[in-house]
Amino acid sequence: MTVSIIGIGLLGGSFALALREKYPKMRFIGVDTSLVNSQLALAKGIVDDVLPLTEAVAQSNLVVLATPVNVIMNLLPTVLDHLSPSGTVVDLGSTKGLICEVADQHPKRAQFVAAHPMAGTENSGPGAAFRELLPGKNLIICDREKSQPDCLLLTESLFRDVGMKLFYMTPQEHDLHLAYVSHLSHISAFALGLTVLEKEKDEQAIFDMASTGFSSTVRLAKSSPQMWAPIFDQNRTNVSSALADYIEFLRQFKQVIDDQDVTTSLDFMQRANVIRRVLDGIEKR
Amino acid sequence: MTVSIIGIGLLGGSFALALREKYPKMRFIGVDTSLVNSQLALAKGIVDDVLPLTEAVAQSNLVVLATPVNVIMNLLPTVLDHLSPSGTVVDLGSTKGLICEVADQHPKRAQFVAAHPMAGTENSGPGAAFRELLPGKNLIICDREKSQPDCLLLTESLFRDVGMKLFYMTPQEHDLHLAYVSHLSHISAFALGLTVLEKEKDEQAIFDMASTGFSSTVRLAKSSPQMWAPIFDQNRTNVSSALADYIEFLRQFKQVIDDQDVTTSLDFMQRANVIRRVLDGIEKR
Repeated sequence: MTVSIIGIGLLGGSFALALREKYPKMRFIGVDTSLVNSQLALAKGIVDDVLPLTEAVAQSNLVVLATPVNVIMNLLPTVLDHLSPSGTVVDLGSTKGLICEVADQHPKRAQFVAAHPMAGTENSGPGAAFRELLPGKNLIICDREKSQPDCLLLTESLFRDVGMKLFYMTPQEHDLHLAYVSHLSHISAFALGLTVLEKEKDEQAIFDMASTGFSSTVRLAKSSPQMWAPIFDQNRTNVSSALADYIEFLRQFKQVIDDQDVTTSLDFMQRANVIRRVLDGIEKR
Repeated sequence: MTVSIIGIGLLGGSFALALREKYPKMRFIGVDTSLVNSQLALAKGIVDDVLPLTEAVAQSNLVVLATPVNVIMNLLPTVLDHLSPSGTVVDLGSTKGLICEVADQHPKRAQFVAAHPMAGTENSGPGAAFRELLPGKNLIICDREKSQPDCLLLTESLFRDVGMKLFYMTPQEHDLHLAYVSHLSHISAFALGLTVLEKEKDEQAIFDMASTGFSSTVRLAKSSPQMWAPIFDQNRTNVSSALADYIEFLRQFKQVIDDQDVTTSLDFMQRANVIRRVLDGIEKR
Protein backbone atom coordinates (compact mmCIF):
# COMPACT_ATOMS: atom_id res chain seq x y z
CA MET A 1 0.00 0.00 0.00
CA THR A 2 1.25 3.48 -0.93
CA VAL A 3 0.40 6.66 0.97
CA SER A 4 1.20 10.16 -0.26
CA ILE A 5 1.61 12.97 2.26
CA ILE A 6 1.02 16.35 0.63
CA GLY A 7 2.66 18.89 2.95
CA ILE A 8 5.20 17.06 5.11
CA GLY A 9 4.86 19.21 8.24
CA LEU A 10 3.90 18.67 11.85
CA LEU A 11 0.59 16.95 11.18
CA GLY A 12 1.30 15.06 7.94
CA GLY A 13 4.72 14.02 9.22
CA SER A 14 3.40 12.83 12.59
CA PHE A 15 0.65 10.80 10.91
CA ALA A 16 3.23 9.12 8.64
CA LEU A 17 5.56 8.36 11.55
CA ALA A 18 2.71 6.82 13.57
CA LEU A 19 1.51 4.75 10.58
CA ARG A 20 5.02 3.53 9.75
CA GLU A 21 5.38 2.07 13.19
CA LYS A 22 2.15 0.11 12.74
CA TYR A 23 2.72 -0.83 9.07
CA PRO A 24 6.46 -1.14 8.37
CA LYS A 25 5.86 -2.22 4.76
CA MET A 26 3.68 0.74 3.83
CA ARG A 27 5.34 3.00 1.27
CA PHE A 28 5.26 6.76 1.87
CA ILE A 29 5.68 9.41 -0.82
CA GLY A 30 6.16 13.02 0.20
CA VAL A 31 5.06 16.09 -1.79
CA ASP A 32 6.20 19.52 -0.66
CA THR A 33 6.93 22.83 -2.39
CA SER A 34 9.85 23.34 -0.01
CA LEU A 35 13.03 21.52 -1.02
CA VAL A 36 14.35 21.86 2.52
CA ASN A 37 11.24 20.25 4.01
CA SER A 38 11.46 17.45 1.43
CA GLN A 39 15.09 16.76 2.30
CA LEU A 40 14.39 16.85 6.02
CA ALA A 41 11.42 14.50 5.63
CA LEU A 42 13.60 12.01 3.74
CA ALA A 43 16.42 12.35 6.27
CA LYS A 44 14.05 11.84 9.19
CA GLY A 45 12.56 8.73 7.57
CA ILE A 46 9.07 10.23 7.33
CA VAL A 47 8.82 9.38 3.61
CA ASP A 48 10.62 6.99 1.28
CA ASP A 49 10.46 9.19 -1.83
CA VAL A 50 9.64 12.71 -2.80
CA LEU A 51 7.71 13.15 -6.06
CA PRO A 52 5.77 15.84 -7.93
CA LEU A 53 2.11 16.04 -6.93
CA THR A 54 0.35 14.37 -9.86
CA GLU A 55 2.88 11.57 -10.07
CA ALA A 56 2.56 10.84 -6.36
CA VAL A 57 -1.24 10.92 -6.46
CA ALA A 58 -1.47 8.53 -9.42
CA GLN A 59 0.60 5.92 -7.53
CA SER A 60 -1.22 6.17 -4.21
CA ASN A 61 -3.95 4.20 -2.50
CA LEU A 62 -4.30 7.01 0.03
CA VAL A 63 -3.49 10.69 -0.41
CA VAL A 64 -3.28 12.80 2.75
CA LEU A 65 -3.67 16.57 2.28
CA ALA A 66 -1.83 18.20 5.19
CA THR A 67 -0.99 21.67 3.88
CA PRO A 68 -2.42 25.00 5.10
CA VAL A 69 -6.19 25.08 4.46
CA ASN A 70 -6.07 27.52 1.53
CA VAL A 71 -3.68 25.16 -0.26
CA ILE A 72 -5.92 22.17 0.52
CA MET A 73 -8.79 24.01 -1.17
CA ASN A 74 -6.69 24.74 -4.23
CA LEU A 75 -5.16 21.28 -4.53
CA LEU A 76 -8.19 19.13 -3.80
CA PRO A 77 -9.74 19.24 -7.34
CA THR A 78 -6.37 18.41 -8.97
CA VAL A 79 -5.75 15.57 -6.52
CA LEU A 80 -9.21 14.10 -7.19
CA ASP A 81 -8.66 14.49 -10.95
CA HIS A 82 -5.49 12.37 -10.82
CA LEU A 83 -6.64 9.88 -8.20
CA SER A 84 -6.87 6.22 -9.26
CA PRO A 85 -10.42 4.76 -9.27
CA SER A 86 -9.68 2.81 -6.07
CA GLY A 87 -7.87 5.67 -4.31
CA THR A 88 -8.93 7.70 -1.27
CA VAL A 89 -8.12 11.34 -0.44
CA VAL A 90 -8.32 12.59 3.14
CA ASP A 91 -7.61 16.14 4.25
CA LEU A 92 -6.44 17.16 7.73
CA GLY A 93 -7.44 20.83 7.57
CA SER A 94 -8.55 22.86 10.61
CA THR A 95 -11.57 24.25 8.74
CA LYS A 96 -14.10 22.05 7.02
CA GLY A 97 -16.86 24.22 5.51
CA LEU A 98 -15.19 25.62 2.40
CA ILE A 99 -13.12 22.50 1.80
CA CYS A 100 -16.26 20.34 1.82
CA GLU A 101 -17.98 22.79 -0.55
CA VAL A 102 -15.10 22.42 -3.01
CA ALA A 103 -15.25 18.65 -2.68
CA ASP A 104 -19.02 18.62 -3.26
CA GLN A 105 -18.50 20.15 -6.71
CA HIS A 106 -16.18 17.36 -7.86
CA PRO A 107 -17.46 14.25 -9.66
CA LYS A 108 -15.18 12.08 -7.49
CA ARG A 109 -16.55 13.53 -4.19
CA ALA A 110 -17.23 10.04 -2.84
CA GLN A 111 -13.50 9.22 -2.86
CA PHE A 112 -12.84 12.10 -0.44
CA VAL A 113 -13.01 12.01 3.38
CA ALA A 114 -12.97 15.29 5.33
CA ALA A 115 -11.09 14.87 8.61
CA HIS A 116 -9.52 17.00 11.32
CA PRO A 117 -7.27 15.64 14.07
CA MET A 118 -7.62 17.63 17.34
CA ALA A 119 -3.88 17.74 17.85
CA GLY A 120 -1.02 20.08 17.24
CA THR A 121 1.78 22.02 18.84
CA GLU A 122 3.02 25.57 18.33
CA ASN A 123 5.84 24.18 16.16
CA SER A 124 5.75 23.39 12.46
CA GLY A 125 7.69 21.64 9.68
CA PRO A 126 8.96 18.05 9.39
CA GLY A 127 11.46 18.70 12.21
CA ALA A 128 8.50 19.22 14.58
CA ALA A 129 6.77 15.96 13.58
CA PHE A 130 6.75 13.17 16.17
CA ARG A 131 5.14 9.75 16.35
CA GLU A 132 3.25 10.45 19.60
CA LEU A 133 1.32 13.51 18.40
CA LEU A 134 -1.86 11.73 17.29
CA PRO A 135 -2.25 8.65 19.53
CA GLY A 136 -4.86 9.30 22.23
CA LYS A 137 -6.29 12.37 20.49
CA ASN A 138 -9.67 12.86 18.80
CA LEU A 139 -10.39 12.91 15.05
CA ILE A 140 -13.45 14.62 13.65
CA ILE A 141 -14.86 13.34 10.35
CA CYS A 142 -17.38 15.54 8.52
CA ASP A 143 -20.09 14.60 6.01
CA ARG A 144 -19.25 10.92 6.34
CA GLU A 145 -22.38 9.95 4.38
CA LYS A 146 -20.88 11.64 1.30
CA SER A 147 -17.82 9.35 1.29
CA GLN A 148 -18.12 5.91 -0.28
CA PRO A 149 -17.95 3.07 2.29
CA ASP A 150 -14.51 1.68 1.31
CA CYS A 151 -12.86 5.12 1.40
CA LEU A 152 -14.45 5.93 4.76
CA LEU A 153 -13.53 2.54 6.19
CA LEU A 154 -9.88 2.84 5.12
CA THR A 155 -9.64 6.29 6.70
CA GLU A 156 -11.34 5.23 9.93
CA SER A 157 -9.19 2.09 10.19
CA LEU A 158 -5.90 3.92 9.75
CA PHE A 159 -6.71 6.68 12.23
CA ARG A 160 -7.99 4.15 14.77
CA ASP A 161 -4.81 2.15 14.21
CA VAL A 162 -2.69 5.10 15.30
CA GLY A 163 -4.80 5.33 18.47
CA MET A 164 -7.29 8.08 17.64
CA LYS A 165 -10.91 8.30 18.78
CA LEU A 166 -13.41 9.19 16.05
CA PHE A 167 -16.24 11.73 16.15
CA TYR A 168 -18.70 12.70 13.41
CA MET A 169 -20.41 15.99 12.64
CA THR A 170 -21.35 18.38 9.84
CA PRO A 171 -18.73 20.84 8.50
CA GLN A 172 -20.91 23.68 9.88
CA GLU A 173 -20.92 22.23 13.40
CA HIS A 174 -17.19 21.60 13.18
CA ASP A 175 -16.34 25.14 12.13
CA LEU A 176 -18.58 26.73 14.76
CA HIS A 177 -17.16 24.66 17.66
CA LEU A 178 -13.58 25.04 16.47
CA ALA A 179 -13.91 28.84 16.33
CA TYR A 180 -14.45 28.77 20.10
CA VAL A 181 -12.28 25.95 21.37
CA SER A 182 -9.31 26.42 19.05
CA HIS A 183 -9.27 29.41 16.71
CA LEU A 184 -10.18 31.91 19.45
CA SER A 185 -7.46 30.69 21.81
CA HIS A 186 -4.89 31.19 19.05
CA ILE A 187 -6.03 34.77 18.43
CA SER A 188 -6.12 35.45 22.15
CA ALA A 189 -2.49 34.28 22.42
CA PHE A 190 -1.30 36.17 19.31
CA ALA A 191 -2.90 39.40 20.62
CA LEU A 192 -1.45 38.86 24.10
CA GLY A 193 2.02 38.40 22.63
CA LEU A 194 1.62 41.58 20.57
CA THR A 195 0.34 43.61 23.53
CA VAL A 196 3.22 42.61 25.78
CA LEU A 197 5.90 43.01 23.09
CA GLU A 198 4.50 46.43 22.17
CA LYS A 199 4.61 47.66 25.78
CA GLU A 200 7.76 45.96 26.96
CA LYS A 201 10.25 47.21 24.39
CA ASP A 202 12.94 45.68 26.60
CA GLU A 203 12.61 41.92 26.09
CA GLN A 204 14.82 41.32 29.12
CA ALA A 205 12.10 42.81 31.36
CA ILE A 206 9.54 40.29 30.08
CA PHE A 207 12.08 37.56 30.53
CA ASP A 208 12.92 38.53 34.13
CA MET A 209 9.34 39.06 35.26
CA ALA A 210 7.30 36.51 33.35
CA SER A 211 6.47 33.25 35.05
CA THR A 212 5.38 29.94 33.66
CA GLY A 213 1.76 31.19 33.76
CA PHE A 214 2.60 33.79 31.13
CA SER A 215 4.46 31.23 28.99
CA SER A 216 1.51 28.89 29.05
CA THR A 217 -1.05 31.54 28.11
CA VAL A 218 0.98 33.04 25.28
CA ARG A 219 2.50 29.80 23.96
CA LEU A 220 0.25 29.59 20.90
CA ALA A 221 1.57 33.00 19.74
CA LYS A 222 4.56 31.00 18.46
CA SER A 223 2.29 29.25 15.91
CA SER A 224 2.81 29.48 12.16
CA PRO A 225 1.17 32.58 10.56
CA GLN A 226 1.11 30.79 7.17
CA MET A 227 -1.01 28.06 8.67
CA TRP A 228 -3.33 30.26 10.75
CA ALA A 229 -4.08 33.22 8.46
CA PRO A 230 -6.05 31.02 5.99
CA ILE A 231 -7.87 29.26 8.86
CA PHE A 232 -9.11 32.57 10.29
CA ASP A 233 -10.02 33.68 6.78
CA GLN A 234 -11.92 30.51 5.85
CA ASN A 235 -13.78 30.45 9.16
CA ARG A 236 -14.15 34.22 9.43
CA THR A 237 -17.87 34.38 10.24
CA ASN A 238 -17.56 32.07 13.25
CA VAL A 239 -14.18 33.44 14.31
CA SER A 240 -15.51 36.98 14.13
CA SER A 241 -18.49 36.07 16.37
CA ALA A 242 -16.25 34.28 18.85
CA LEU A 243 -13.91 37.29 18.92
CA ALA A 244 -16.84 39.66 19.41
CA ASP A 245 -18.02 37.57 22.41
CA TYR A 246 -14.50 37.49 23.83
CA ILE A 247 -13.97 41.24 23.41
CA GLU A 248 -17.32 41.86 25.10
CA PHE A 249 -16.32 39.76 28.14
CA LEU A 250 -12.99 41.59 28.34
CA ARG A 251 -14.75 44.95 28.06
CA GLN A 252 -17.12 43.96 30.89
CA PHE A 253 -14.21 42.73 33.00
CA LYS A 254 -12.39 46.04 32.42
CA GLN A 255 -15.50 47.98 33.47
CA VAL A 256 -15.81 45.91 36.63
CA ILE A 257 -12.17 46.60 37.49
CA ASP A 258 -12.50 50.32 36.69
CA ASP A 259 -15.60 50.45 38.92
CA GLN A 260 -13.77 48.65 41.78
CA ASP A 261 -16.68 46.19 41.74
CA VAL A 262 -14.86 43.34 43.47
CA THR A 263 -18.04 41.29 43.95
CA THR A 264 -18.73 41.05 40.20
CA SER A 265 -15.02 40.47 39.54
CA LEU A 266 -15.14 37.49 41.93
CA ASP A 267 -18.32 36.24 40.25
CA PHE A 268 -16.73 36.39 36.76
CA MET A 269 -13.75 34.36 37.91
CA GLN A 270 -15.83 31.83 39.82
CA ARG A 271 -17.86 31.21 36.66
CA ALA A 272 -14.64 30.84 34.65
CA ASN A 273 -13.31 28.36 37.24
CA VAL A 274 -15.86 25.81 35.94
CA ILE A 275 -13.36 25.24 33.10
CA ARG A 276 -11.25 23.26 35.61
CA ARG A 277 -13.59 20.28 35.22
CA VAL A 278 -13.12 20.30 31.44
CA LEU A 279 -9.35 20.82 31.58
CA ASP A 280 -8.81 18.10 34.17
CA GLY A 281 -10.59 15.77 31.75
CA ILE A 282 -8.46 16.84 28.77
CA GLU A 283 -5.24 16.44 30.74
CA LYS A 284 -6.18 12.95 31.87
CA ARG A 285 -7.03 11.95 28.33
CA MET B 1 15.20 30.74 64.44
CA THR B 2 11.42 30.95 64.19
CA VAL B 3 9.50 31.79 61.02
CA SER B 4 5.78 32.54 60.89
CA ILE B 5 3.86 31.93 57.68
CA ILE B 6 0.68 34.03 57.59
CA GLY B 7 -1.53 32.36 54.98
CA ILE B 8 -0.34 28.78 54.53
CA GLY B 9 -1.19 28.40 50.85
CA LEU B 10 0.68 27.64 47.65
CA LEU B 11 3.31 30.36 48.02
CA GLY B 12 3.76 30.52 51.79
CA GLY B 13 3.67 26.74 52.04
CA SER B 14 6.15 26.21 49.21
CA PHE B 15 8.56 28.74 50.73
CA ALA B 16 8.37 26.95 54.10
CA LEU B 17 8.93 23.53 52.49
CA ALA B 18 11.97 24.80 50.57
CA LEU B 19 13.43 26.49 53.68
CA ARG B 20 12.86 23.41 55.87
CA GLU B 21 14.98 21.32 53.56
CA LYS B 22 17.85 23.80 53.85
CA TYR B 23 17.39 24.50 57.59
CA PRO B 24 15.98 21.42 59.34
CA LYS B 25 16.15 23.08 62.78
CA MET B 26 14.17 26.16 61.79
CA ARG B 27 10.80 26.35 63.58
CA PHE B 28 7.73 27.19 61.51
CA ILE B 29 4.50 28.62 62.90
CA GLY B 30 1.44 28.79 60.70
CA VAL B 31 -1.35 31.36 60.90
CA ASP B 32 -4.49 30.85 58.86
CA THR B 33 -8.16 31.79 59.22
CA SER B 34 -9.10 28.41 57.74
CA LEU B 35 -9.06 25.55 60.23
CA VAL B 36 -8.88 23.07 57.34
CA ASN B 37 -5.82 24.76 55.85
CA SER B 38 -4.18 24.84 59.28
CA GLN B 39 -4.77 21.12 59.79
CA LEU B 40 -3.55 20.28 56.29
CA ALA B 41 -0.42 22.40 56.78
CA LEU B 42 0.36 20.57 60.03
CA ALA B 43 -0.35 17.19 58.45
CA LYS B 44 1.87 17.95 55.46
CA GLY B 45 4.72 19.07 57.74
CA ILE B 46 4.72 22.62 56.37
CA VAL B 47 4.52 24.10 59.89
CA ASP B 48 5.25 22.79 63.40
CA ASP B 49 2.51 24.77 65.17
CA VAL B 50 -0.50 26.84 64.39
CA LEU B 51 -1.04 29.94 66.54
CA PRO B 52 -3.15 33.11 66.56
CA LEU B 53 -1.60 35.98 64.61
CA THR B 54 -0.26 38.25 67.36
CA GLU B 55 1.14 35.33 69.38
CA ALA B 56 2.93 33.94 66.31
CA VAL B 57 4.35 37.34 65.33
CA ALA B 58 5.68 38.07 68.83
CA GLN B 59 7.70 34.79 68.81
CA SER B 60 9.12 35.15 65.29
CA ASN B 61 12.41 36.32 63.85
CA LEU B 62 10.80 36.37 60.42
CA VAL B 63 7.14 36.87 59.54
CA VAL B 64 6.09 35.97 55.99
CA LEU B 65 2.83 37.53 54.79
CA ALA B 66 1.49 35.21 52.09
CA THR B 67 -2.26 35.94 52.06
CA PRO B 68 -4.26 37.62 49.26
CA VAL B 69 -2.99 41.21 48.77
CA ASN B 70 -6.00 42.92 50.39
CA VAL B 71 -5.40 40.89 53.55
CA ILE B 72 -1.67 41.72 53.45
CA MET B 73 -2.60 45.42 53.42
CA ASN B 74 -4.93 44.98 56.36
CA LEU B 75 -2.60 42.81 58.44
CA LEU B 76 0.70 44.59 57.84
CA PRO B 77 0.19 47.38 60.46
CA THR B 78 -0.86 44.86 63.13
CA VAL B 79 2.05 42.58 62.32
CA LEU B 80 4.53 45.47 62.55
CA ASP B 81 2.91 46.60 65.83
CA HIS B 82 3.54 43.20 67.44
CA LEU B 83 6.92 42.48 65.84
CA SER B 84 9.91 42.13 68.17
CA PRO B 85 12.60 44.85 67.81
CA SER B 86 14.90 42.40 65.98
CA GLY B 87 12.18 40.89 63.79
CA THR B 88 11.66 41.14 60.03
CA VAL B 89 8.40 41.09 58.05
CA VAL B 90 8.39 40.19 54.36
CA ASP B 91 5.32 40.08 52.16
CA LEU B 92 4.93 37.97 49.02
CA GLY B 93 2.08 39.93 47.42
CA SER B 94 1.59 40.21 43.65
CA THR B 95 1.04 43.97 43.89
CA LYS B 96 3.50 46.28 45.58
CA GLY B 97 2.27 49.90 45.29
CA LEU B 98 -0.48 50.04 47.91
CA ILE B 99 1.26 47.61 50.26
CA CYS B 100 4.41 49.77 50.25
CA GLU B 101 2.26 52.89 50.87
CA VAL B 102 0.75 51.24 53.94
CA ALA B 103 4.22 50.21 55.12
CA ASP B 104 5.57 53.75 54.64
CA GLN B 105 3.06 55.07 57.15
CA HIS B 106 4.26 52.74 59.92
CA PRO B 107 6.99 53.76 62.43
CA LYS B 108 8.59 50.30 62.02
CA ARG B 109 8.79 50.57 58.17
CA ALA B 110 12.49 49.68 58.20
CA GLN B 111 11.72 46.19 59.55
CA PHE B 112 9.61 45.44 56.46
CA VAL B 113 10.83 44.03 53.13
CA ALA B 114 8.50 44.14 50.11
CA ALA B 115 9.03 41.06 47.92
CA HIS B 116 7.30 39.18 45.11
CA PRO B 117 8.35 35.73 43.86
CA MET B 118 7.70 35.29 40.10
CA ALA B 119 6.24 31.85 40.64
CA GLY B 120 2.89 30.20 41.01
CA THR B 121 0.53 27.65 39.58
CA GLU B 122 -3.21 27.73 38.96
CA ASN B 123 -3.73 25.74 42.18
CA SER B 124 -4.03 27.06 45.72
CA GLY B 125 -4.04 26.02 49.38
CA PRO B 126 -1.50 24.02 51.41
CA GLY B 127 -2.26 20.91 49.37
CA ALA B 128 -0.88 22.68 46.28
CA ALA B 129 2.39 23.73 47.99
CA PHE B 130 5.55 21.94 46.84
CA ARG B 131 9.24 22.36 47.62
CA GLU B 132 10.28 22.92 44.00
CA LEU B 133 8.02 25.92 43.28
CA LEU B 134 10.54 28.67 44.08
CA PRO B 135 14.01 27.28 43.25
CA GLY B 136 15.25 28.67 39.94
CA LYS B 137 12.65 31.45 39.84
CA ASN B 138 13.07 35.22 40.20
CA LEU B 139 12.28 37.35 43.26
CA ILE B 140 11.58 41.07 42.95
CA ILE B 141 12.34 43.26 45.97
CA CYS B 142 10.90 46.78 45.99
CA ASP B 143 12.08 49.90 47.86
CA ARG B 144 15.07 48.05 49.27
CA GLU B 145 16.61 51.29 50.53
CA LYS B 146 13.69 51.67 52.95
CA SER B 147 14.47 48.36 54.70
CA GLN B 148 17.17 48.31 57.37
CA PRO B 149 20.30 46.36 56.32
CA ASP B 150 19.88 43.37 58.65
CA CYS B 151 16.23 42.82 57.64
CA LEU B 152 17.10 43.12 53.96
CA LEU B 153 20.09 40.81 54.32
CA LEU B 154 18.09 38.13 56.13
CA THR B 155 15.41 38.21 53.42
CA GLU B 156 17.94 38.14 50.57
CA SER B 157 19.88 35.29 52.19
CA LEU B 158 16.84 33.07 52.73
CA PHE B 159 15.46 33.54 49.23
CA ARG B 160 18.90 32.97 47.70
CA ASP B 161 19.21 29.86 49.86
CA VAL B 162 16.10 28.40 48.28
CA GLY B 163 17.62 29.05 44.86
CA MET B 164 15.99 32.31 43.77
CA LYS B 165 17.57 35.09 41.71
CA LEU B 166 16.98 38.60 43.06
CA PHE B 167 15.92 41.73 41.16
CA TYR B 168 15.27 45.21 42.51
CA MET B 169 12.87 47.92 41.39
CA THR B 170 10.37 50.49 42.62
CA PRO B 171 6.81 49.42 43.52
CA GLN B 172 5.58 51.54 40.59
CA GLU B 173 7.84 49.76 38.08
CA HIS B 174 6.84 46.41 39.54
CA ASP B 175 3.12 47.06 39.27
CA LEU B 176 3.35 48.41 35.72
CA HIS B 177 5.40 45.44 34.39
CA LEU B 178 3.31 42.87 36.24
CA ALA B 179 0.08 44.26 34.77
CA TYR B 180 1.40 43.22 31.35
CA VAL B 181 3.36 40.03 31.95
CA SER B 182 1.13 38.48 34.59
CA HIS B 183 -2.16 40.18 35.46
CA LEU B 184 -3.23 40.58 31.81
CA SER B 185 -2.58 36.92 30.97
CA HIS B 186 -4.80 35.90 33.89
CA ILE B 187 -7.65 38.13 32.70
CA SER B 188 -7.19 36.90 29.14
CA ALA B 189 -7.54 33.30 30.36
CA PHE B 190 -10.53 34.00 32.65
CA ALA B 191 -12.35 35.76 29.79
CA LEU B 192 -11.49 32.96 27.36
CA GLY B 193 -12.86 30.39 29.80
CA LEU B 194 -16.06 32.43 30.21
CA THR B 195 -16.51 32.91 26.46
CA VAL B 196 -16.18 29.22 25.69
CA LEU B 197 -18.34 28.06 28.62
CA GLU B 198 -21.03 30.56 27.70
CA LYS B 199 -21.15 29.39 24.08
CA GLU B 200 -20.60 25.70 24.59
CA LYS B 201 -23.38 24.87 27.03
CA ASP B 202 -22.50 21.22 26.46
CA GLU B 203 -19.21 20.70 28.29
CA GLN B 204 -18.73 17.39 26.51
CA ALA B 205 -18.35 19.27 23.20
CA ILE B 206 -15.48 21.35 24.61
CA PHE B 207 -13.96 18.22 26.00
CA ASP B 208 -14.17 16.31 22.71
CA MET B 209 -12.89 19.13 20.52
CA ALA B 210 -10.37 20.98 22.63
CA SER B 211 -6.72 20.15 22.20
CA THR B 212 -3.74 20.78 24.44
CA GLY B 213 -3.39 24.25 22.87
CA PHE B 214 -6.72 25.25 24.36
CA SER B 215 -5.79 23.78 27.75
CA SER B 216 -2.57 25.70 27.83
CA THR B 217 -4.14 29.04 26.88
CA VAL B 218 -7.03 28.78 29.32
CA ARG B 219 -5.16 27.10 32.17
CA LEU B 220 -4.93 30.23 34.33
CA ALA B 221 -8.75 30.46 34.35
CA LYS B 222 -8.52 27.81 37.07
CA SER B 223 -6.81 30.34 39.38
CA SER B 224 -8.27 31.44 42.71
CA PRO B 225 -10.78 34.33 42.42
CA GLN B 226 -10.13 35.26 46.08
CA MET B 227 -6.46 35.79 45.30
CA TRP B 228 -6.91 37.59 41.96
CA ALA B 229 -9.84 39.96 42.56
CA PRO B 230 -7.82 42.07 45.07
CA ILE B 231 -4.75 42.04 42.77
CA PHE B 232 -6.76 43.45 39.84
CA ASP B 233 -8.35 45.96 42.23
CA GLN B 234 -5.08 47.14 43.78
CA ASN B 235 -3.37 47.43 40.41
CA ARG B 236 -6.45 48.67 38.56
CA THR B 237 -4.89 51.66 36.79
CA ASN B 238 -2.16 49.55 35.17
CA VAL B 239 -4.40 46.54 34.59
CA SER B 240 -7.02 48.75 32.98
CA SER B 241 -4.42 50.22 30.56
CA ALA B 242 -3.07 46.78 29.72
CA LEU B 243 -6.60 45.52 29.09
CA ALA B 244 -7.38 48.54 26.91
CA ASP B 245 -4.26 47.81 24.82
CA TYR B 246 -5.20 44.14 24.57
CA ILE B 247 -8.81 44.85 23.58
CA GLU B 248 -7.56 47.29 20.93
CA PHE B 249 -5.28 44.62 19.36
CA LEU B 250 -8.15 42.12 19.38
CA ARG B 251 -10.48 44.69 17.81
CA GLN B 252 -7.89 45.36 15.07
CA PHE B 253 -7.40 41.63 14.53
CA LYS B 254 -11.17 41.17 14.22
CA GLN B 255 -11.35 44.01 11.69
CA VAL B 256 -8.55 42.45 9.64
CA ILE B 257 -10.37 39.09 9.62
CA ASP B 258 -13.71 40.73 8.74
CA ASP B 259 -11.98 42.60 5.90
CA GLN B 260 -10.35 39.35 4.62
CA ASP B 261 -7.05 41.25 4.82
CA VAL B 262 -4.81 38.18 4.94
CA THR B 263 -1.61 40.23 4.45
CA THR B 264 -2.16 42.25 7.64
CA SER B 265 -3.30 39.12 9.46
CA LEU B 266 0.01 37.46 8.53
CA ASP B 267 1.91 40.58 9.62
CA PHE B 268 0.20 40.62 13.06
CA MET B 269 1.10 37.00 13.68
CA GLN B 270 4.67 37.38 12.45
CA ARG B 271 5.16 40.25 14.90
CA ALA B 272 3.66 38.14 17.70
CA ASN B 273 6.01 35.26 16.78
CA VAL B 274 8.89 37.31 18.24
CA ILE B 275 7.62 36.11 21.63
CA ARG B 276 9.24 32.73 20.81
CA ARG B 277 12.68 34.15 21.71
CA VAL B 278 11.43 35.24 25.12
CA LEU B 279 9.53 32.02 25.83
CA ASP B 280 12.42 29.80 24.81
CA GLY B 281 14.49 31.70 27.37
CA ILE B 282 11.90 31.28 30.14
CA GLU B 283 11.53 27.57 29.43
CA LYS B 284 15.29 26.99 29.59
CA ARG B 285 15.53 28.89 32.88
